[in-house]
Amino acid sequence: METFQYWSASDLDDLEQRYRVNLVNSLSGFKSANLIGTIDPAGVTNLAIVSSVVHLGASPPLIAFINRPDTVERHTLDNLAATGWFTVNQVNVDCWQQAHQTSARYPRAVSEFEPTGLTAEFSETCPAPYVAESRLRYACQVVEEQRLAVNGTVMVIGRIAELQIAGGAVGRDGYVDIEALGTVAVSGLDSYHRTRRLGRLSYAKPGAPARRID
Amino acid sequence: METFQYWSASDLDDLEQRYRVNLVNSLSGFKSANLIGTIDPAGVTNLAIVSSVVHLGASPPLIAFINRPDTVERHTLDNLAATGWFTVNQVNVDCWQQAHQTSARYPRAVSEFEPTGLTAEFSETCPAPYVAESRLRYACQVVEEQRLAVNGTVMVIGRIAELQIAGGAVGRDGYVDIEALGTVAVSGLDSYHRTRRLGRLSYAKPGAPARRID
Repeated sequence: METFQYWSASDLDDLEQRYRVNLVNSLSGFKSANLIGTIDPAGVTNLAIVSSVVHLGASPPLIAFINRPDTVERHTLDNLAATGWFTVNQVNVDCWQQAHQTSARYPRAVSEFEPTGLTAEFSETCPAPYVAESRLRYACQVVEEQRLAVNGTVMVIGRIAELQIAGGAVGRDGYVDIEALGTVAVSGLDSYHRTRRLGRLSYAKPGAPARRID
Repeated sequence: METFQYWSASDLDDLEQRYRVNLVNSLSGFKSANLIGTIDPAGVTNLAIVSSVVHLGASPPLIAFINRPDTVERHTLDNLAATGWFTVNQVNVDCWQQAHQTSARYPRAVSEFEPTGLTAEFSETCPAPYVAESRLRYACQVVEEQRLAVNGTVMVIGRIAELQIAGGAVGRDGYVDIEALGTVAVSGLDSYHRTRRLGRLSYAKPGAPARRID
């Protein structure tokens, strides 16, 4: 019998602010680590690490990410409003520390590519920059933005317009072995993890336990 | 110099459907694995594994998850509409196969707790069931639902009303060591992974590389 720590709603309200931020950021479970690349009309590039990219649908191919309320300066949201394009670049074991550094508050005129040493790469499809160090990356056009009534958070929805994956990672059924690509996971605000596969399971059906398919 | 596979928007459109579903579900990166617990007005419990729980804010403590369009029978959404409550239960290395099995299409009258062998547990705060096997779990009240115009997907936003975490996992700064709890990550539709920490990094500031804080 395990012992549990317990918090009521008012216990959570009473926590010291920084403690609560760390605690609540741990509750969703492991999160994705992606760099969002954008560009402003003057050609200044921007990179921002986000842990909130989620799958929305495959037909058409859609993803979404959450941006904090734009009550402070939000270079990514401003660039999206101006250009309508962004790239998503999975963070891997070889660039996770540089990726984290993009969360520092650089002035608007500074591209995060410079101080972090990450490399911008461009395609003919998308004006926003890719991250050359990423092994799975794609370009999106903004199709919808939702401001959530509850706390002013903005959800950006993008349609995938171009996809690039380092060779050998895509299986015959379309599954991408992102573990083999060295993609990392995040917990809380600041902890980075690599992964070890437990297994792939077949499509679940009533009456029969799912079997291993890896 | 790595070789990349490349897909344009029309290449993606032309993919065989199952292949595209696997491919696009891999693009967001590692995802969280959580069981959403609900109950209907007659007392029938429901469990659904979701990989789309995201953090929305700490003050007040809010999370969100994405539900597929409710054009087919969606027991979770119906129960939320009827009761307004759900639990979120992190999936761990000791119950990931049972958790996956909840995605089978059981009839409405069947509680997923029975065929999967997972154990329902109740608190005084929340009518929806917890999963006893989960080591980090919380109860939420629905505060907002957003139907996304682009594909009919529903985003459910919940405010955390109660939190339970197995002893010893919460650090002095509020960070929860979900790796120590055995929490798993998901890639694609069906691959489960445990994790190994690379490191925690300090709050990033311009001009100074973030240092390790673990």
